[in-house]
Amino acid sequence: MDYQLFYWNVPFRGNFPLILMSEAGLKFEVVDASKIYPDSSLSIICPGVAPPYLLDCKENKYLNQMPAIMMHLASRHNLLPKNSPDVWVALKLILDCNDILYEITRYHGMEMWTSQKWKEFRTYRFSKWLKQFETIGYERLDKTSGFFFDGKISVADLSVTALLGALKWSFPALTTDMKESCPNVLSLVERVEKREGIKQFLKKQRKELGKEYCSGQIEDSIRSMLSSQAH
Amino acid sequence: MDYQLFYWNVPFRGNFPLILMSEAGLKFEVVDASKIYPDSSLSIICPGVAPPYLLDCKENKYLNQMPAIMMHLASRHNLLPKNSPDVWVALKLILDCNDILYEITRYHGMEMWTSQKWKEFRTYRFSKWLKQFETIGYERLDKTSGFFFDGKISVADLSVTALLGALKWSFPALTTDMKESCPNVLSLVERVEKREGIKQFLKKQRKELGKEYCSGQIEDSIRSMLSSQAH
Repeated sequence: MDYQLFYWNVPFRGNFPLILMSEAGLKFEVVDASKIYPDSSLSIICPGVAPPYLLDCKENKYLNQMPAIMMHLASRHNLLPKNSPDVWVALKLILDCNDILYEITRYHGMEMWTSQKWKEFRTYRFSKWLKQFETIGYERLDKTSGFFFDGKISVADLSVTALLGALKWSFPALTTDMKESCPNVLSLVERVEKREGIKQFLKKQRKELGKEYCSGQIEDSIRSMLSSQAH
Repeated sequence: MDYQLFYWNVPFRGNFPLILMSEAGLKFEVVDASKIYPDSSLSIICPGVAPPYLLDCKENKYLNQMPAIMMHLASRHNLLPKNSPDVWVALKLILDCNDILYEITRYHGMEMWTSQKWKEFRTYRFSKWLKQFETIGYERLDKTSGFFFDGKISVADLSVTALLGALKWSFPALTTDMKESCPNVLSLVERVEKREGIKQFLKKQRKELGKEYCSGQIEDSIRSMLSSQAH
C-alpha cells in the first residue's frame, strides 16, 4: 500500500487525490475520515483541522489540505508542469477548483440554496469560473487533444477533471453550462475520464455510490434547485 | 518596480504577499483592485475570479489566488523550505491561514456573527487552528528563536505572521487566545514583525489604516462580538 486517504465515502473533495493516484497507478485505499477526525486529528504528526488527510504509508507521514496533497503527490509522481511559473499556475487552478467546491455547497452547507441565489450562481458565478478555465486552456486545448501544460497530463488536468467530471456525473444538467462556457475544457475532462486507471476507478466508484456528490442537506438543496429549474 | 499587487486597501489577504515582498526587499506597489476587478479580470492573460492579483512587471504576467502568489514569490525569492516534503507542508500552512480568513469573516460576510457562533468559534475552532500551528512548530520553535523549517525564515513563517500579526494588531483581545494556544508561534510572529523590511512596511501601513482589518459589515460584526465579550 502506497497511500491511505482519510475521507468520507463521497466524491467531492476526495476525488482529487483519488483520480491522481489512479492515473499514477499507485496502490491506495480510502479509510473513513472518522478514524482520524475530529478526535485524533490534532495528535498526529503534522496535524490538520479537516479531511482529507493523506497518509504516506512508507514514510508514515500525514498531510491534509487538498491542494497541498495534490501538489505533494504530483511532485512525487511526475505530474507537475515542467517550468516553475507553470507549477504555480497549476496550483492556482487547483485553488480555483477548491473555491468552486466551497461555493457550490454554500461553504459546506452554511446556508441552503434559494432559487434566487442559485440562479445568480449559475448565470454569473459558475459561468465565470468555467470561462476562466477555458481562457487559461485557450492556447493548448482543442476539441480532440491537448493538456494545460507541456503537451502532457499534469495535476492541473486531473484537478479540473476531478471537479467537473464529478459535477457532470452527479448533476448532468450542469453539462449544459460546461458546453456553453468551456467546450474545450469539457472535452479535456471527457478524455481524461477515459484514461485506463481513471476509467476503472470511476466505474467502480460510480457503481458503488451512484449519483451521490457531497451528501447531506446541501446536496438535497442543489438537487431541489436543479429539479425546480426543470433542466 | 518588481511587482504590483491589485488589492483593496486593507491588510486581510493582501498582507500575505506584501509582508513577503517587504522581507525580500522587493520593489512593489499596491494598486486598487477595482482597476482589474471585476470588469477586466477575465480578459488578462491567466485570468482570475477574485483579488489579490499579482502582476510581475518584468514579465507582464498575472497570477491570482493568494496561496499560489505566495508559493510563486517564495520560489523566486528563496523563501521555500529546502526539502520537497516540507515545501508542501509550508503550502498546507498557507492554506490553513487562508481557511482562517474565510472562517473569521464567515466566508466573506455571507452571514454576520451571533454571540453563540462567535463563542463557539473562539472556544473550539480558533483555538484548534492555533494549537495546530503550535504542534507543527513544536520541534523547531521556542520562545526566543526558531523558524518552521531549516532554521531560516520561509514562506511559512511569513504567512503565519501575516495572519496572526494582523489579527493581533486589529483585534488585540485575540492575543489572549494566542498566548494560551500557541505561545511559541506568537513569539515567532513578534520576532518576524520586527525584521527590518517588515517593521517599516507595517509601521507605514498601520499609520495609514489604523486598526482596520477586512472592512465592511463583517468587521463591524467581529468588533461588536469582541466588545460585548468585554475582553
